Amino acid sequence: MSQLNLKKHHIVVIGAGFGGIDFVNHLKHRDVQITLIDKRNHHLFQPLLYQVASASLAPSEIAWPVRHLFRNRKDVRTLMAEVVDIDKVLRKVILSSGDCILYDSLVIATGATHTYFGNDNWAPYALSLKTLEDATKIRSKILTAFEKAEHSKDDKLKDALQTFVVVGGGATGVEIAGTIAELAHNTLKKDFRFLDTTKTKVLLIEAGPRVLPMFPESLSRYTTKSLEKLGIKVLTNSPVTNCDSEGVVFNGERLMTFNIIWAAGVKASPAAVWLGAESDWAGRVIVDSYLNVPSFPEIFVIGDTASVKMSDGSDVPGIAPAAKQGGEYVANVINNKLKKKPHLKPFKYNHQGNFATIGRSLAVIDLGFIKLRGGVAWWIWKLVHIYFLVGIRSRLSVAISWVWNHTFGYRSSRIIVGDTQEKEGAESN
Amino acid sequence: MSQLNLKKHHIVVIGAGFGGIDFVNHLKHRDVQITLIDKRNHHLFQPLLYQVASASLAPSEIAWPVRHLFRNRKDVRTLMAEVVDIDKVLRKVILSSGDCILYDSLVIATGATHTYFGNDNWAPYALSLKTLEDATKIRSKILTAFEKAEHSKDDKLKDALQTFVVVGGGATGVEIAGTIAELAHNTLKKDFRFLDTTKTKVLLIEAGPRVLPMFPESLSRYTTKSLEKLGIKVLTNSPVTNCDSEGVVFNGERLMTFNIIWAAGVKASPAAVWLGAESDWAGRVIVDSYLNVPSFPEIFVIGDTASVKMSDGSDVPGIAPAAKQGGEYVANVINNKLKKKPHLKPFKYNHQGNFATIGRSLAVIDLGFIKLRGGVAWWIWKLVHIYFLVGIRSRLSVAISWVWNHTFGYRSSRIIVGDTQEKEGAESN
Repeated sequence: MSQLNLKKHHIVVIGAGFGGIDFVNHLKHRDVQITLIDKRNHHLFQPLLYQVASASLAPSEIAWPVRHLFRNRKDVRTLMAEVVDIDKVLRKVILSSGDCILYDSLVIATGATHTYFGNDNWAPYALSLKTLEDATKIRSKILTAFEKAEHSKDDKLKDALQTFVVVGGGATGVEIAGTIAELAHNTLKKDFRFLDTTKTKVLLIEAGPRVLPMFPESLSRYTTKSLEKLGIKVLTNSPVTNCDSEGVVFNGERLMTFNIIWAAGVKASPAAVWLGAESDWAGRVIVDSYLNVPSFPEIFVIGDTASVKMSDGSDVPGIAPAAKQGGEYVANVINNKLKKKPHLKPFKYNHQGNFATIGRSLAVIDLGFIKLRGGVAWWIWKLVHIYFLVGIRSRLSVAISWVWNHTFGYRSSRIIVGDTQEKEGAESN
Repeated sequence: MSQLNLKKHHIVVIGAGFGGIDFVNHLKHRDVQITLIDKRNHHLFQPLLYQVASASLAPSEIAWPVRHLFRNRKDVRTLMAEVVDIDKVLRKVILSSGDCILYDSLVIATGATHTYFGNDNWAPYALSLKTLEDATKIRSKILTAFEKAEHSKDDKLKDALQTFVVVGGGATGVEIAGTIAELAHNTLKKDFRFLDTTKTKVLLIEAGPRVLPMFPESLSRYTTKSLEKLGIKVLTNSPVTNCDSEGVVFNGERLMTFNIIWAAGVKASPAAVWLGAESDWAGRVIVDSYLNVPSFPEIFVIGDTASVKMSDGSDVPGIAPAAKQGGEYVANVINNKLKKKPHLKPFKYNHQGNFATIGRSLAVIDLGFIKLRGGVAWWIWKLVHIYFLVGIRSRLSVAISWVWNHTFGYRSSRIIVGDTQEKEGAESN
């Protein structure tokens, strides 16, 4: 049992998302010890989380124990714990247990969470999608709604149970709306006796002027049309002004529904508060061009928690490749420092492209030099995502799930777990 | 959307376990309508539940939506609801929502649950294993214990976190003890830096004189020896007299542990109470030799909820094949009745054998005419269980999980979900 060697340079990494994992993967130095802290025991492949929420994949297909990923790295110790503060002067991370961990270098990669833009009272009604628990909760909610609708004798209630509202027209919103529509219109069609699941209403509500604002306008238009073909009502320029137990309000009108999914707002983790550092409008720590917190060359912030500008003045987007590139860059910076090599050039984000799926057979891809849409894009999307999963086991498992889903319309994870006895105004029978 | 046809004979089935599902599978008659009620939306393959608890399989690999199983049976409607009472005279089933469902024939297949023999206050400390939620809770508990032990500085606490006590030496107890020992001694060995997982203590505590009492004595002895080789301490004639937040008491002594798994007592569902019918010591409804509730020829009870005697005077065991045979038998009884054919012979349980695994490469099988043990028995066990899973998709998925587990010692479902911040006297760090 190796104990912490105090003579070695000790790097503490907070967060085992894409940024934290890639940092550790790239930092290998014999005089370094790494402590990787995360609230959870697993690394989560967040781009596929919506497929857990829609019963296509099982949680364990897109999550891996952090310590298993680094089982062969004796220089890495894993700690499942919650960080509550950072002491920049004494160089220590403070945990919720009261314990402190001293560092020589600190890498913060704590990601982002959802925000209701100050309306936290909407949270119980508008479910968000950031963790595996969120995903299984949404899955249970969707499946339970159909179970209740099957035996509801009140047409108005039945209608509300069969109405799904996705708030937010970004990639997650588009993907979850598409997959709910296909679940209702295809997968579940033969399963019910008193319910026409093809009459299920799915609405995608976006406050801005178009869906997928990070894509070129032509792909946004294509996406809207494709979603409409799947039977989804797409509403743009429609900010939501209320969510409660009976439904959602937008454009001054109330729509009755028990199924609201929140894919609208993202805010950074509280790293800026821990650091007492300057932050931008989304709560992200403003770092210099070396991903350093100004005046603290031993503290780095990467991924969704960092506010970094590109050469054209726009923000580096909060997506997995940006976090991974940040992780790799900081690993090189620290490596160079330890080897007393000259300092690296400033961080430059290399945008590889944007991806989004629309249901189970279409996708849009914008690689800058080329734009793809339709079935071919969808195949590329699948292959790319399989490639980025961890390990042969997961790749095989996800590939089989997708083949089954695509060929037979079958979704293997349609199980309701957790409290199924919730009421929320909707009575069964 | 077909509505309930009041002219047809209406059979209500309560419970979508092995008995209920097999009943519906065997009852096909054009003048019959079936309503299948279950609290949950899924049929669960309970014999493999311990593998979910020990992170080898994912929940969705052993559970299937009930309505999906009968999607091509227009005569079957599925209802996810909780039954709270039965009115035998007016022939109706009463649901927790207050709604009633009238029946012409009633088949009760509500199974069994665990019992703490009157000590329900042990429940928070001694986790039982009957549902998918139970399994993921036990899985999180086991994995969290290792996470906490890794960073515990108190040797006594560390020891208690690394001590697992399984109460009950039946098949479930033996299987879960074996799989925890292998998890600790093999799967997790390389994952920790400050913890020697091979020092994990696993105890199997049985009140009676031997483990696997339903097997011949020679196989019980073999099982005990095999468990001991896996590093498990097997204690027989040791009734547990207390379970609390600090450990377990047996043989007048207290053992400190935070990880107690309860595989000891089984009691029937409250069907006898609903029916106001005579029940045996385990709460099972006493039925006649046609699986009928005396004086109510339209009410049948099958599986773990029924008390049925074999020709030698002993009870039909509470295992899946007995429930399935009961389901098939009652389907034939009702079929004959509807076709005005002569009444069947009394139900005769055909015992096919007992199975239990010991870790990931040994098993014991008692088929009566032949007894098997060791690696061959284990292969047979695997093949039999794969065969009984529902659908090619699940068979493929479970087979892959087992190959990976067996070949690489890898368990894909080692994710902690749910509330990981529970304290229970064990502080991390």
